[in-house]
Amino acid sequence: MALITVGTMAFDAIETPFGKTDKIIGGSATYVAYAASNFVTPVQQISIVGYDFPQEEMDELKSRGVELDGVEIVPDKKSFFWSGKYHIDMNTRDTLVTDLNVLADFNPVVPESFQGAEFLMLGNLMPKLQLSVINQLKVRPKLIVMDTMNFWMDIAMDDLKEVLKKVDVLLVNDGEARQLSGELSLVKAARKIMEMGPAFLIIKKGEHGALLFHESHVFFAPALPLEEVFDPTGAGDTFAGGFIGHLAKTKDISFDNMKTAIIIGSAMASFCVEKFGPERLKEITKEDIDARLSEFVQLVNFDIDLV
Amino acid sequence: MALITVGTMAFDAIETPFGKTDKIIGGSATYVAYAASNFVTPVQQISIVGYDFPQEEMDELKSRGVELDGVEIVPDKKSFFWSGKYHIDMNTRDTLVTDLNVLADFNPVVPESFQGAEFLMLGNLMPKLQLSVINQLKVRPKLIVMDTMNFWMDIAMDDLKEVLKKVDVLLVNDGEARQLSGELSLVKAARKIMEMGPAFLIIKKGEHGALLFHESHVFFAPALPLEEVFDPTGAGDTFAGGFIGHLAKTKDISFDNMKTAIIIGSAMASFCVEKFGPERLKEITKEDIDARLSEFVQLVNFDIDLV
Repeated sequence: MALITVGTMAFDAIETPFGKTDKIIGGSATYVAYAASNFVTPVQQISIVGYDFPQEEMDELKSRGVELDGVEIVPDKKSFFWSGKYHIDMNTRDTLVTDLNVLADFNPVVPESFQGAEFLMLGNLMPKLQLSVINQLKVRPKLIVMDTMNFWMDIAMDDLKEVLKKVDVLLVNDGEARQLSGELSLVKAARKIMEMGPAFLIIKKGEHGALLFHESHVFFAPALPLEEVFDPTGAGDTFAGGFIGHLAKTKDISFDNMKTAIIIGSAMASFCVEKFGPERLKEITKEDIDARLSEFVQLVNFDIDLV
Repeated sequence: MALITVGTMAFDAIETPFGKTDKIIGGSATYVAYAASNFVTPVQQISIVGYDFPQEEMDELKSRGVELDGVEIVPDKKSFFWSGKYHIDMNTRDTLVTDLNVLADFNPVVPESFQGAEFLMLGNLMPKLQLSVINQLKVRPKLIVMDTMNFWMDIAMDDLKEVLKKVDVLLVNDGEARQLSGELSLVKAARKIMEMGPAFLIIKKGEHGALLFHESHVFFAPALPLEEVFDPTGAGDTFAGGFIGHLAKTKDISFDNMKTAIIIGSAMASFCVEKFGPERLKEITKEDIDARLSEFVQLVNFDIDLV
């Protein structure tokens, strides 16, 4: 029941209205792995780091069932570094620094030991690299989930559309869904995007929750109303990790099970934002996750008699 | 089981990205009445109109069980008129014209025949007038729901806070909740606002749904993802009408029943935005409402096993 995840493992420096960090651990694949490994192991990681990525972090991931055979370590270069500053509303941010470093040379290679994985999470990454991973797999996974972002729509839309044809689920935010489809209405945008390839589309709306579209069906998962969002970095990746982790655990890729998976993704994301970086994800237990899931049930549960 | 509604009955001229109207029927009390009368009668209306408000509209309301004894008709003045233009995202709008006309002299008088009503809906109106209606009631209603807006926070905050002490449920949007409380976090804002008086707070987030707060509980109701929002005018009032209409029908003002009431309010609002003005609300049948409620159940319903 292996899950392959592809994405960045990196350093971030983050400034929010609540505080500021020096370089801390980040990267899309890091967050996906911390979230997904609560539900399924092994998580088979494909990424690239420099000489400066800490061994303790690798050990921590390994101890959670994350296999790092697919993580290339470049001995003479630094890891990818991103620095950003969130605005007061926490929904928007400015990028201060992007040092590609090792990422400039990333050419993901799927280790032989990862062949046969049934689930594939393509974290936010250059579309050509996402496609390369798909093409290296000898057996098509049962489910391919793809995350992407507006940056790739700006500079590599054609490549992105090639990947779209090969994936089952696409994850984007509302602005990206509008950009990709050219439609303002999310319902219309969803229809157009599903025509591009993915049978399922998840539109993330941050503090406003997430929508799952499939054929003519739609499901809405709220975000938990939080007293404070401390640091939103990685929340989307954590959501993705919880989502695909649950699907891989249950081996059920029906629309109904995806509803549950989205609630689980939302619950994991709600932990992520409580502290800087993946710190909170390292602390939580299965009991914490269960308690959070119960809050979600309370949040949206209602009885209705028709009029 | 009477429900008193207080608010405006007016003319609106609306421009949206989808079209433009001349003067059409509008006003907070009008929308509340059209929505609530699907669930409870009589709806006892308190408002003021000029010589130009059409008799057919009055007749239409009466035929739905709306009692108009509390609607003052001023023979030599025009009805309140508002004109606005929505921006492309439909979430923001510019006011083009506000002609108070009869509203400048509005001094609501509760008819003797309305005394004893168990439910009171204070539509968006000058806080002093909302307070006057509360003070005229010889027996306090079982439930008082208050709608208001940022405009009154800007010019009549002290009066508004007086009314807040006397109501059970406050309805505001997210921006207004932040303005009223001085808190950015809606969870913190909710706590502060409930300390000002209302035991229940509903924060409306437009296309992003609505939150219900009570003590330490929170409930979230989504908005239905619509292909097109044609005209958002009156959606908030329609929501309020559906909400209090259901509570008045069931006579149950528990938190659990308010959850249901919010879903019903959301369903009614989802009809309202489909056409200009209250037009769509006049067309719909109980079957339409039931079908829409079933869509809401589908939209948020999920099964979960704890991890």
